[in-house]
Amino acid sequence: MTAIYLDHNATTPLAPGVLEVMTRYLATDFGNPSSGHHFGAAPREAVAAARQQLAALLGAPADRIFFTGCGSEANTLAITGALMGRAGQVITQATEHPAVLQTCHALAPQGIRVTVLPVDADGLVNPTDLADALTDDTLLVSVMHANNETGTIQPIVELGALAHSAGALFHTDAAQTAGKIAFTVEQLGVDLLSVAGHKFGGPKGVGALYVREGVELSPVIRGGGQEGGLRSGTENVAGIAGIGAAAEYSAKTPRDQLAVLRNELQRLLVDALGDRVRLNGHPTFRLPNTLNVSIAGTVGAHLLAATPGLAASTGSACHDGSIGSPVLAAMGYGGERAAAAIRLSVGRPTSDADIREAARLLVSAVHTMG
Amino acid sequence: MTAIYLDHNATTPLAPGVLEVMTRYLATDFGNPSSGHHFGAAPREAVAAARQQLAALLGAPADRIFFTGCGSEANTLAITGALMGRAGQVITQATEHPAVLQTCHALAPQGIRVTVLPVDADGLVNPTDLADALTDDTLLVSVMHANNETGTIQPIVELGALAHSAGALFHTDAAQTAGKIAFTVEQLGVDLLSVAGHKFGGPKGVGALYVREGVELSPVIRGGGQEGGLRSGTENVAGIAGIGAAAEYSAKTPRDQLAVLRNELQRLLVDALGDRVRLNGHPTFRLPNTLNVSIAGTVGAHLLAATPGLAASTGSACHDGSIGSPVLAAMGYGGERAAAAIRLSVGRPTSDADIREAARLLVSAVHTMG
Repeated sequence: MTAIYLDHNATTPLAPGVLEVMTRYLATDFGNPSSGHHFGAAPREAVAAARQQLAALLGAPADRIFFTGCGSEANTLAITGALMGRAGQVITQATEHPAVLQTCHALAPQGIRVTVLPVDADGLVNPTDLADALTDDTLLVSVMHANNETGTIQPIVELGALAHSAGALFHTDAAQTAGKIAFTVEQLGVDLLSVAGHKFGGPKGVGALYVREGVELSPVIRGGGQEGGLRSGTENVAGIAGIGAAAEYSAKTPRDQLAVLRNELQRLLVDALGDRVRLNGHPTFRLPNTLNVSIAGTVGAHLLAATPGLAASTGSACHDGSIGSPVLAAMGYGGERAAAAIRLSVGRPTSDADIREAARLLVSAVHTMG
Repeated sequence: MTAIYLDHNATTPLAPGVLEVMTRYLATDFGNPSSGHHFGAAPREAVAAARQQLAALLGAPADRIFFTGCGSEANTLAITGALMGRAGQVITQATEHPAVLQTCHALAPQGIRVTVLPVDADGLVNPTDLADALTDDTLLVSVMHANNETGTIQPIVELGALAHSAGALFHTDAAQTAGKIAFTVEQLGVDLLSVAGHKFGGPKGVGALYVREGVELSPVIRGGGQEGGLRSGTENVAGIAGIGAAAEYSAKTPRDQLAVLRNELQRLLVDALGDRVRLNGHPTFRLPNTLNVSIAGTVGAHLLAATPGLAASTGSACHDGSIGSPVLAAMGYGGERAAAAIRLSVGRPTSDADIREAARLLVSAVHTMG
């Protein structure tokens, strides 16, 4: 069976060129980058090149990029690394990925007080709420760049400036924005920024954390001192080369088509189903590839089950199978609206024909379901 | 330039079949295992199959194998996971990998007292020393299965029984033994056992921890709840499939040749250089693939620099470039003996001709150096 893949926020196929570079470091240049001999040289150079490629995508100095084993580990390194052995406040918000929320809460026993800011009906954090929550002992503020379910993009520049004015560090989980929208860590003004390779055409099993110069973190995984001592363990050379190649592809390839495709999908659904289609997430401050809608009178899981030719999700892949999205709940949507939610996320391989067929399948299923 | 690769304790080339299975999950079946739709199924099955394959190698139930991002992370999950939020004693030993030593010491601020047992001149822990060190509040004992530099194999069965008699958990870092010697977690009697894929023909960027049923750990990386909640983060499907394929290859392919090749290399060096060749590590309780020798009158780094046709190391890859091995220092070897040490580690791809040529290169260089 083949299906149209509109679940790029869950994971993406490899970008062009990524498999080839990975294969080189899997099959041929297999050495350990720490080896002093011949076999260590090419892998060491590959890691350095990938660091440059990812740094270029993020507008960061290469020596401030630290590779990890996944995006969740990058979030852990940012939060636990910044707060380990300290007592005080961390501020986050309600629609964060559980890798952020749970990591913050897990630090409570050492004396970390967790404040979770609310979001409005579009999923946005109100900067006034952050200003009110900041205290003298706020150590860190962690607010995601864009939400994985709704695509809502937070006002990071404003939130970061508030955090800094209170003397706190600012971290953002950019797993969903890297490679989808253009930004630099300087424009955002963040101290710590996490990415996950497989969300933008890189492989699973590799992530990275940007750490602003001068920001001190404790390592989470200790040992041989790789990644400047911040993340020990023999480097996943092929994976790192893969995230680097994906970053370069993302930086060099126009991404305007994502919004065109997403907007066309939204238009086709609204044209066919009218005001039964309710948008979840901010209409403007939103990832260009993401469409989260609730179609009145349907149940998202049933609708997707009735469209096996379309691969999409009712929420994040991490929660698939659970009842109800905590993200929509935080936006004030429970009951039928939350149960109806479906997330359609396009990617660079998505075609116009995919969009038309996806809309046709959904509209047909809605009409059949009554 | 080509060189004979005798540094398999640093990292190994992929075992036969590993690249092919990885390519499938990189290039074709790229879905997120957590996805409820079509694209999630094959990746989910691949992770389950790899868990079975690795479990079979280790003689463990598949549901007690938890994949991580590397061997160091597996050690971190074992030690930090077992001790998080607790106060008491952890006992380890002097020649452990820094991923174990540093992780233990990093827990001191929460009230963990670290006892580091000595080793004898062969690198062995004396069980009597462990018996003497155990106290009422010993929470965990962590002793590696075999040392990465010397290959010395510790008396895990005896040490584990002592730990259990004192009510402590027992962890072993089996990064260097998995796939090289036959064992099961039941034979060893351990509660926690770490492996690293790239040490036995799997890819870099994936490790695993065996956790005996009933042993409770805190996760180190939290989030979506993957790996039974013990290690969140989207699964590195290709890497996991790779470690599984490597485990199956290791389990099914005779490994007797490793000791034959290593012993021949040792014989050729001793025949040519006589008692200038001093063995570092236990002569019997030793990995079959590892030969660590100090050739009197030489400096290891100079000797390897004079043999560019041979890729080997003076110690662990993690420490390459640093002066002096802490492992040899713990065995009582400083000065000339430690400076002369070279580690020659054969692997399954090593041939008889490789061994003869490696010996010829080394002997020739020693004679040239005088």
